[in-house]
Amino acid sequence: MMNKYRLMSPGPTPIPPEVSAAGALPIIHHRTPEFGEVFARVNENLKQVFLTENDIFTYAASGTGAFEGAIQNLFTPGDKVLVVNSGNFGNRWVKMSRAFDLEVTELKYDWDVKADNDEISAKLAEDPEIKAAMCVLSETSTGTVNDIKGFARATENVISIVDAVSGLGACELRTDDWGVDVVVAGSQKALMIPPGLGFVSVSERAWSAHEESKMPRFYFDWTAAKKAYEKDPPQTAWTPAVSLVIQLDLALRQILDEGVENVFERHVLLGRAAREGIKGMGLQLFGPDEDMNAAVTAAWVPEGVDGKQLVRLMFREHGIQVAGGQGDMAGKIWRIGHCGYFDSYDVIATIAAAELALESLDHPVELGRGVGAAQRVFSRSGVAV
Amino acid sequence: MMNKYRLMSPGPTPIPPEVSAAGALPIIHHRTPEFGEVFARVNENLKQVFLTENDIFTYAASGTGAFEGAIQNLFTPGDKVLVVNSGNFGNRWVKMSRAFDLEVTELKYDWDVKADNDEISAKLAEDPEIKAAMCVLSETSTGTVNDIKGFARATENVISIVDAVSGLGACELRTDDWGVDVVVAGSQKALMIPPGLGFVSVSERAWSAHEESKMPRFYFDWTAAKKAYEKDPPQTAWTPAVSLVIQLDLALRQILDEGVENVFERHVLLGRAAREGIKGMGLQLFGPDEDMNAAVTAAWVPEGVDGKQLVRLMFREHGIQVAGGQGDMAGKIWRIGHCGYFDSYDVIATIAAAELALESLDHPVELGRGVGAAQRVFSRSGVAV
Repeated sequence: MMNKYRLMSPGPTPIPPEVSAAGALPIIHHRTPEFGEVFARVNENLKQVFLTENDIFTYAASGTGAFEGAIQNLFTPGDKVLVVNSGNFGNRWVKMSRAFDLEVTELKYDWDVKADNDEISAKLAEDPEIKAAMCVLSETSTGTVNDIKGFARATENVISIVDAVSGLGACELRTDDWGVDVVVAGSQKALMIPPGLGFVSVSERAWSAHEESKMPRFYFDWTAAKKAYEKDPPQTAWTPAVSLVIQLDLALRQILDEGVENVFERHVLLGRAAREGIKGMGLQLFGPDEDMNAAVTAAWVPEGVDGKQLVRLMFREHGIQVAGGQGDMAGKIWRIGHCGYFDSYDVIATIAAAELALESLDHPVELGRGVGAAQRVFSRSGVAV
Repeated sequence: MMNKYRLMSPGPTPIPPEVSAAGALPIIHHRTPEFGEVFARVNENLKQVFLTENDIFTYAASGTGAFEGAIQNLFTPGDKVLVVNSGNFGNRWVKMSRAFDLEVTELKYDWDVKADNDEISAKLAEDPEIKAAMCVLSETSTGTVNDIKGFARATENVISIVDAVSGLGACELRTDDWGVDVVVAGSQKALMIPPGLGFVSVSERAWSAHEESKMPRFYFDWTAAKKAYEKDPPQTAWTPAVSLVIQLDLALRQILDEGVENVFERHVLLGRAAREGIKGMGLQLFGPDEDMNAAVTAAWVPEGVDGKQLVRLMFREHGIQVAGGQGDMAGKIWRIGHCGYFDSYDVIATIAAAELALESLDHPVELGRGVGAAQRVFSRSGVAV
């Protein structure tokens, strides 16, 4: 049977049709009033999604590039930082910090556990030379969302850096209210456009650190970016990814039309439905069963089932692209992404496909039980689905 | 009167319709056999355009980012390099090299003059500690194309680095035949896709230098890229700009269908027609009147005419987006880009619009003289236009 392609991975994620269509528009020149108007609007609307008044810089880069920029712009080799490592991305920021000769205090957690903000406080109190702390909002590799409100409080005396690549615009993150100094994000998750743009928001305190930092940098240099942004109309320092910025303009308007708070609420429901669906079909969740985990839902592969085969089968036979585990979790867990352009029926279809795939792999499953549990979440929510 | 939008800038450049349309395709996941097949083909086809057997790495970044990667991957702070500066981009590589603590011997030329390869040889002979030399193929800011064959010969004992961002796939550049170690390119010029991808090709000698280099790096790290490329199917180290890579796949196939040598020849004709058109309408060329200058044609703004007004008028009244001068040349020169998806009638329309715009600015011009001169180039070429 023909199956439509349904991208249910934690990133890249599907694109709304209007945003897709804009990807086919003719390219316009980036040093024109026409592009300037789009770019100025994008910058303002990004602030509404980041929930900040801080400067936000947009780069032609993935989120990893924008994160590298944060490290290059904030520090001097030898500076001390604390890095929370509870998954593949936390691990990446440890490696990256070391690559740039920072002295890293690594706080490691099991992949299905949230960062302990009390422990973070204690570590910072132990070593007052630590200048900054880094934490991931939503660990794409596990689905676990850290308590960033608590993290910001625990790190209030140092610069707080949050990797919100896969969380921004899906999981609650109140940059200014919570006092997060630096937020890094990417385009291909809840911002609903293709991969290729990276973002960073920079607080006044972070800017002061930037002014003192001595780290070689150029492409991601915040001062060069700020100088270009202060032109009228605002520009980027180097050639921007024009088509992606134009797509972002439309995607941001869709997000603001829905309302950022409504977007958060939708993601809470999608996550809850995914978790209930997983439990309903008799599988075990990976990580906490909490509403915070609104971007990615991870589950253990049941005993006797080959995890890679499950993911492959759901794609080959059902057209539904979920993700397997990363790193040590490869083959052991599988992940449903619902961070961005997703609705209730995307989750329902995914749970239905998982049930069918498990059945065909001779794993005992009662068809419809997981689906029913997911449906019940939407039915009880009072939100029109 | 309604005027179509004609992008005649030196970058970004227009996109073929089939490539534009692919920008609207649904996003696919990048860790799949489907994307791997596209990416493997892109990598092989890029080699045919770069005319090299060397590894080529593709980044979500502009050309400036890929150039930064070359500096980070080849050098150790304090290393000596020679940088040719004969325009805005040469100037950028001087600044970037200094930002990364390289000791720069700068060879400065007037903006309308090509680099002197004998002088480069002599400078390298004077200081055997210089490890590498950098030169721009086509200076977007001036239209002047440097003699890279001669540059590669002059620099044969050091690592040669060529900024081919606005030249690759338009101006003759035989990476392996000429022995260029590192070629940096971007997506938004002759490769006929939107901005957002940067490329670098790396010779064996450059790879050896990379292995000895000690410069902090992560996002652009060649070792990380190579490790990902060696997977089956090949991957990128970080999330690639999926939609741009898919567009690149189609654009490269169009280039190879036309034939790389034919593409070079087309650009020679476009450049020649643009120069004859400029002279035909009584204006003065900026830079040498040579067939090498096949990517961008620059001309002096005639006395009594406001250069910014000329560019604005051609766009506002005629829909033709040419570019003004950059840096010191702002207002003094104007530039026609014809590097990428351009044919004879694009150049003819641009010359016609320039004639009309000059007339409306009360500059004496005989309508059709420049156009006729441009037409004659195509008529004499024996190439079907």
